[in-house]
Amino acid sequence: MRARVLIRPKEGILDPQGEAVVRALPALGFNGVSNVHVGRLVELDVEDESQLEAMCQKLLANPLVEDYEIQTVSS
Amino acid sequence: MRARVLIRPKEGILDPQGEAVVRALPALGFNGVSNVHVGRLVELDVEDESQLEAMCQKLLANPLVEDYEIQTVSS
Repeated sequence: MRARVLIRPKEGILDPQGEAVVRALPALGFNGVSNVHVGRLVELDVEDESQLEAMCQKLLANPLVEDYEIQTVSS
Repeated sequence: MRARVLIRPKEGILDPQGEAVVRALPALGFNGVSNVHVGRLVELDVEDESQLEAMCQKLLANPLVEDYEIQTVSS
């Protein structure tokens, strides 16, 4: 099964990459962009879907400062 | 409008983070995982959806080595 994990900085946690994007866009001529967050995307094939939650907790995300969302991808 | 951009290393481009995950998982007791790719996730509010493609080309992704996929998120 193909799975996709979306990992985002938690609400209230500093997001320097998001800040950098917000500041850079107007200089490039893009306006009307706000609320930018930059996170990570992990895509993987797993045999046992039930392990995904534990993988996120132990390796893929840092649960102290990141939230994650697991999606299954139909292939 | 809330948009989500999924950015992945292009096919054939080295993905050291994905390799690291593949190697680390068995040591943590997770087996049957393959084909792991680590990319970036950008979520943003945009007023003008038609600008997203250009933003990806110019700032959010590096089109030489990365593919990107734009999704709209219903809020």
